[in-house]
Amino acid sequence: MGVAVNFDAKQDAKQNTASALDRLTALLADDLKAVNRLIMERMDSPVVLIPQLAGHIVASGGKRLRPLLTLATARMCGYPGERHVTLATCVEFIHTATLLHDDVVDESDLRRGQDSANAIWGNKPSVLVGDFLFSRAFELMVLDGSLEVLRILSQASSVIAEGEVLQLITANDTTTDEAAYLAVIKAKTAELFAAACELGSVVADRPAHEQDALKNYGLNLGIAFQLIDDALDFSAKQATLGKTVGDDFRDGKITLPIILAFERAGEDERAFWRRTLEDDEQNDGDLEHAIALMETHGSLDDTVARAREYGNIARKSLDIFPDGEVKNTLLEVIDFCVERAY
Amino acid sequence: MGVAVNFDAKQDAKQNTASALDRLTALLADDLKAVNRLIMERMDSPVVLIPQLAGHIVASGGKRLRPLLTLATARMCGYPGERHVTLATCVEFIHTATLLHDDVVDESDLRRGQDSANAIWGNKPSVLVGDFLFSRAFELMVLDGSLEVLRILSQASSVIAEGEVLQLITANDTTTDEAAYLAVIKAKTAELFAAACELGSVVADRPAHEQDALKNYGLNLGIAFQLIDDALDFSAKQATLGKTVGDDFRDGKITLPIILAFERAGEDERAFWRRTLEDDEQNDGDLEHAIALMETHGSLDDTVARAREYGNIARKSLDIFPDGEVKNTLLEVIDFCVERAY
Repeated sequence: MGVAVNFDAKQDAKQNTASALDRLTALLADDLKAVNRLIMERMDSPVVLIPQLAGHIVASGGKRLRPLLTLATARMCGYPGERHVTLATCVEFIHTATLLHDDVVDESDLRRGQDSANAIWGNKPSVLVGDFLFSRAFELMVLDGSLEVLRILSQASSVIAEGEVLQLITANDTTTDEAAYLAVIKAKTAELFAAACELGSVVADRPAHEQDALKNYGLNLGIAFQLIDDALDFSAKQATLGKTVGDDFRDGKITLPIILAFERAGEDERAFWRRTLEDDEQNDGDLEHAIALMETHGSLDDTVARAREYGNIARKSLDIFPDGEVKNTLLEVIDFCVERAY
Repeated sequence: MGVAVNFDAKQDAKQNTASALDRLTALLADDLKAVNRLIMERMDSPVVLIPQLAGHIVASGGKRLRPLLTLATARMCGYPGERHVTLATCVEFIHTATLLHDDVVDESDLRRGQDSANAIWGNKPSVLVGDFLFSRAFELMVLDGSLEVLRILSQASSVIAEGEVLQLITANDTTTDEAAYLAVIKAKTAELFAAACELGSVVADRPAHEQDALKNYGLNLGIAFQLIDDALDFSAKQATLGKTVGDDFRDGKITLPIILAFERAGEDERAFWRRTLEDDEQNDGDLEHAIALMETHGSLDDTVARAREYGNIARKSLDIFPDGEVKNTLLEVIDFCVERAY
């Protein structure tokens, strides 16, 4: 491969940001342990294939970024209780269910550097165990007893499904523009980030403007996160994250790096994009050529720049909260999400 | 085919029972119209593929049996309001979502006599639109605002998913016994019937023993319904219902007609069942031979007899309710579910 996203990253910044998530994890270690316990407890079933398959994905080294956001925002809002552990678990279950269904949909063979559940057990159990986890999330919310929480997460779930369908529709369509792409990633990724953060203020019973601010933080963080994910798909860095490079390209997913390269392309290059993405006719060397074109037109750099802009909006959303250790770490998480491109 | 479930059915009884569902539909015509309106309204999305695909399955001539049960039990309980329309819609959305996911799982090409959604649009949209409808059901429940309703339907949903996984595990396993089979159909089918009926008493705010009685009615009706479904899969009658015959046999699903025939079989016949169901090696004429063996051992008759027993339990569950038109029709629906085998 050898062609990577390549900016003048500073080694210091990299070291700093790489550990922001670790710091958040350390700061919330007890809460996160409680979440992991609840996950194990609630994904259990007498039908042993269910905890087996769910355990494979739940335990396979996910960063638990989304539940951490719920835990952190609740603590930043001064919440003293334990309900945020339940809500963070619901968020992780919904996320895991969408991953299981995504893998069926994408026909992915790798997830977090391991064989994906559907590659091991087939599509059928992945669909059904996804349904099980999704239902379990709602059972947990009912136990928690807040209709506001149920409202937020049921709405997020249907928006996520809409986003995934929208992504299917824009696939293989090189006329997809940046606005359509943004609609997809807002729905399929950022909506759950937004909900995860909003829940922190809901559980702490904070006023509406704080709830809006946290939702806004999560939404923009989620957009930045997905923009970087889509840039990383064309980056050598990706291999170190346990993912294969070029999955999106092979699936004909139209992401911002491609959209920008296509917009800036002449007719010859457009013919290349149409052959590889619309006609789905890909040969050896096409991925490398695609990455080279992105480099030429600066479309990977510009994707990261966009992510940085959304990160800045996320940053400003936290202005209304008083300074403190959790808030600082939530600010650093923005850098983590953006700077992992290096 | 020509080999059908064959008892001394009386033509009168048949005519009588065939129209029980029509009578229920007529009795609740206004309510059902309101359900259909709400279904159309709530399955809408700016992502047009969603209402397109959902509409294909929602509008393809389903009997609306489950939502009718919610509407009917609510009316039998003297409920005067409109909430039961919302709850019946939630039940139908959950049912439709499981159908969409079932078709992916079963790789079915036909559903209600039409091409199944996944045969037209592929697996991906079917999984995602199922997720969308499932989420929409929960959004509707939140709007309704009853945690008890949310508890009943979230629990039913996870039990359904467990039942579907259990069915996958028992597939192709000729050592599956009647108890394991019953566990599967209780979970995958009867649980939603039970929930649909229970909701009628919940919305009417009736005491716990009435809620239990309606849950019990639905559970046993659902078991009877699925037993007959599984008998019909080997019946010439099936073709008239717009379904192909022998789907379960081809999928290696171990249903009661097969379990009973296997138990009563000598070694030669067991070798046949093992070859066709465990080794998945099926040739021309095998389905006909399977049906002939079931006839020899009376296993289709006995499956229908079992359905009739569960129907009788369902019937007794309604004893505590005062007589009336809706109760009478709910009793006739039991006959409809059992006697459609003829």
